[in-house]
Amino acid sequence: MSSFAVPTTLTEYEASRKDLILADRAQRADHKKGQLSKLEALADKVIRQVRAAEAASIWSLEYEGIPHPFPGMEFLTGRSIIVQTKLFEILGKMPKGGLLHAHLDATVNVSFLLKAALKYPAVHVRASTALNATNIGSVLPEMSVLPQQLRTSSDIALTDHNYIPDTWVPMVKAQESFASQLGGPEGFDRWITAALTINPTEAYVTHNTVTKIWQKFASTFVVSAPLVRYEPIQREYIREFILSSIADGISYVEPRINFLRPFIAEDGQRQLTHKEVLKDFQKVVDEVKAELKAQGREDEFIGAKIIYSTIRFITPEELEWYLRDCIALKKEFPHLIAGFDLVGDENVLKPLTYYLEPLLKFREMQKEAGVSEIPFIFHGGETLGDGTEADMNLYDAILLGTKRIGHGFSLVKHPKLIDLCKERGIAIEVCPISNEILRLTSSMHMHPLPVLLNQGVSVALCSDDPSVFGNMGLTFDYFQVLAASEITGLIQLGEMAKDSIKFSSMEEEEKKDALAAWQKRWEVFLEYAASEGRKFLAQFEGMKVSG
Amino acid sequence: MSSFAVPTTLTEYEASRKDLILADRAQRADHKKGQLSKLEALADKVIRQVRAAEAASIWSLEYEGIPHPFPGMEFLTGRSIIVQTKLFEILGKMPKGGLLHAHLDATVNVSFLLKAALKYPAVHVRASTALNATNIGSVLPEMSVLPQQLRTSSDIALTDHNYIPDTWVPMVKAQESFASQLGGPEGFDRWITAALTINPTEAYVTHNTVTKIWQKFASTFVVSAPLVRYEPIQREYIREFILSSIADGISYVEPRINFLRPFIAEDGQRQLTHKEVLKDFQKVVDEVKAELKAQGREDEFIGAKIIYSTIRFITPEELEWYLRDCIALKKEFPHLIAGFDLVGDENVLKPLTYYLEPLLKFREMQKEAGVSEIPFIFHGGETLGDGTEADMNLYDAILLGTKRIGHGFSLVKHPKLIDLCKERGIAIEVCPISNEILRLTSSMHMHPLPVLLNQGVSVALCSDDPSVFGNMGLTFDYFQVLAASEITGLIQLGEMAKDSIKFSSMEEEEKKDALAAWQKRWEVFLEYAASEGRKFLAQFEGMKVSG
Repeated sequence: MSSFAVPTTLTEYEASRKDLILADRAQRADHKKGQLSKLEALADKVIRQVRAAEAASIWSLEYEGIPHPFPGMEFLTGRSIIVQTKLFEILGKMPKGGLLHAHLDATVNVSFLLKAALKYPAVHVRASTALNATNIGSVLPEMSVLPQQLRTSSDIALTDHNYIPDTWVPMVKAQESFASQLGGPEGFDRWITAALTINPTEAYVTHNTVTKIWQKFASTFVVSAPLVRYEPIQREYIREFILSSIADGISYVEPRINFLRPFIAEDGQRQLTHKEVLKDFQKVVDEVKAELKAQGREDEFIGAKIIYSTIRFITPEELEWYLRDCIALKKEFPHLIAGFDLVGDENVLKPLTYYLEPLLKFREMQKEAGVSEIPFIFHGGETLGDGTEADMNLYDAILLGTKRIGHGFSLVKHPKLIDLCKERGIAIEVCPISNEILRLTSSMHMHPLPVLLNQGVSVALCSDDPSVFGNMGLTFDYFQVLAASEITGLIQLGEMAKDSIKFSSMEEEEKKDALAAWQKRWEVFLEYAASEGRKFLAQFEGMKVSG
Repeated sequence: MSSFAVPTTLTEYEASRKDLILADRAQRADHKKGQLSKLEALADKVIRQVRAAEAASIWSLEYEGIPHPFPGMEFLTGRSIIVQTKLFEILGKMPKGGLLHAHLDATVNVSFLLKAALKYPAVHVRASTALNATNIGSVLPEMSVLPQQLRTSSDIALTDHNYIPDTWVPMVKAQESFASQLGGPEGFDRWITAALTINPTEAYVTHNTVTKIWQKFASTFVVSAPLVRYEPIQREYIREFILSSIADGISYVEPRINFLRPFIAEDGQRQLTHKEVLKDFQKVVDEVKAELKAQGREDEFIGAKIIYSTIRFITPEELEWYLRDCIALKKEFPHLIAGFDLVGDENVLKPLTYYLEPLLKFREMQKEAGVSEIPFIFHGGETLGDGTEADMNLYDAILLGTKRIGHGFSLVKHPKLIDLCKERGIAIEVCPISNEILRLTSSMHMHPLPVLLNQGVSVALCSDDPSVFGNMGLTFDYFQVLAASEITGLIQLGEMAKDSIKFSSMEEEEKKDALAAWQKRWEVFLEYAASEGRKFLAQFEGMKVSG
């Protein structure tokens, strides 16, 4: 400590101060990286200047309907400003590494899902009452795929006061016939979209608590599930998820698939076996990889694995069935099954302790089945609670040997668990925008991420449920993190991207290749970021002089 | 680590889990305390039950104008519910120890200040324009004390359209003549009160960012200063501050007094010397102590000291003057001057580095003057910034040897600084309600306090500016902390109260006496809390059965 004794001269002081700041940041990935290359240092510096320039310009203006704009603000309100920034444009080109925390059912733009749904005659929609201007905001669409014999040719509008509640109408007809007073076909699309996404008023006004926003959040999955889980749509959906991820600079995806809800075959009737679901998934992945190879772009996508998930409201007996199902799939698709998780609102559903018996048996069950290890990759601490079951899940996730932690929002309160995460190489899947929209934090500035980074915990940034939040890809989440800190710069973002590969479920060989490929693309990106940023800064200075 | 290897049997698991939780909480004051007495354990348990009972009852109802009630919610919205709770009633009786962070100008109820102001003919008020229904929400009152020759007998109403802008009107007359359409005298009081307090709409809607709410916050001091700093009112004000603190269970106060703004003598003209200000302060303290002694209540109040403060927008040269002034006062009032601080919005005013030269000389200056040490007791890290000047102030506060840290809101991001605070016995003056109203956190659930407690940092809970926030005393802040955690209980609150004595600026002897006195009152309080809580729980169960 003596090295930090109170200095008396300015020179002594400056030296001690430098030492102290270094000691305080010594565990950060960007500091551990050590000496930067000329290019890294330049790009990092330029990006910090771009960030400062835009904080003082585009973020300092007043906007209709955005009372308090600032970098890192509430995503749903600030999104329209974010997409206009140079910082966002540049980050869009950054190689992001892997996407380690995303729920497959919520990974693709709603507009894409809607378009897909309209292509298949099996897709029908109904409402619990005839829609009108007063109830359209509260009545949810129920969509489903029907077997041939149940399909209707009914073309009565859902908005017709003669509409008989809960009558199925083919999706296309329902869209065509949607009353013009309610916006016609576009009004229909808006109605569906509103049910599948969270809007600013819901997040920041009407549902402005964790409990209330989770109710809206959960409802979006109920509405979308029948579409997303309809085999022909699911194939397109998975393909689009992978392609849009690649377009955003993501080179590997490890989505969680919820095997509790049914998957329906093309005929609209038969339930797919989980084996068929994985076959479909693998097929799409292989197709995409082949196409990229044909284009000489194989470096852009390493592949995909799946985290088998079910929902934390089932009984321990039911969980045991899912564990066995997961093991059976692992036997058939050893390279596809990456881990096992329980999903759903930790604040209201069952804690991990409720499932201790089956969970403790999982390892043994795997040995008996003779499959290579299936690690737990648990959600944990996605809560504001201090000592609540959701917060306590962190103890159990770690005791049960979780490979990573999903969210770990409350981890910062637990010094011993932070040590364990570092000692055991447990990375945290941090979902900045998800946490903010689900009201764990009011803006990125209140997010505990800097605590994790300064404590030296490994972090992979993730999008969680982009179709509901509107944070497609990873660029938005990287943007929010970069915008809300003066310490975090491009180098730290790069280290998090690397960690998303290092802590993924890829084989060691795959990781090596992935890291090498990432490094190549990173160098190219740094060149681009530096030159693009400088151009912007030059214009910016110009404007300041002229204006 | 091995002790935390993945267990395989349930019994092994439970044992490891217990160990892990203990290890994780080992640094908490309530855990370090060790074995609890029967009474402590009982009272702690009962209070946890009361908290749970009220979370499920009074906090689960719907309230007019309170869309999302929950324990630990936004203070200005939840206050009306808080005061109805049994938990609040019980905590009101808790011995709180010392109040270590409060700005004297903002420590007493506005209604008291208003009543005092109306007693003195020197007090006048004016407005920049005649008040009417449309502008009353935006036009601030300017209040001042005038010397005899400038006092007016003008009794034209501020609400009269013939009112000449900026004409002084005696306070009493202004109140009497306030137009009935604007509420008459009560409307006048509301107008003054609104200018001296922050209301929910300002905090949570119109000024819902740190920057904007600080603008309103700062304006309340500008409006109140001339009253609070008028000698006859100041005497009453200090007396009321101390008496209301004692009534809330506070037995020692260490307010910050801002010596930048002038203090005015009874004649309304002459500026008081700082020596006179301290004399007045000491006189009031002595009077109160004598009165308590006469009532055999001397145990309820140990005394008061002052943290000399000026505002962080002056020049380094000016600061040197204030440092010398502080030393001169220390010479005359060695037991009254406890430390030195710089106050004001860290996010927009000057950082500590701006004042390094004079600050580094302070110790030397004290030696030359031959006064006993005057420690720095700096504000630091009262910000959401990550690496901003306000956040970086923490490095400088600690390097400069600060005795405690005011707020230290961003300290949780700094592992090395946390270590230093523990090694050097630097306690953090945590102001939960202030932080929430000034928008550093949206509710107590997002406040970083649990991180500090679990890291073993010493914390004293403080009210900061209760006249502006409405959190008079310390009961409200203790309530918010207790309501927002399942881990923190009565024992932890007691340890924080003890730390507010241990880390105060009392002499060692005074501390011993204060702690002994506190312990006696604590035992009485535990008895009360246990029995009062049990009565409540019995009724509560009764209601559940009957209802």
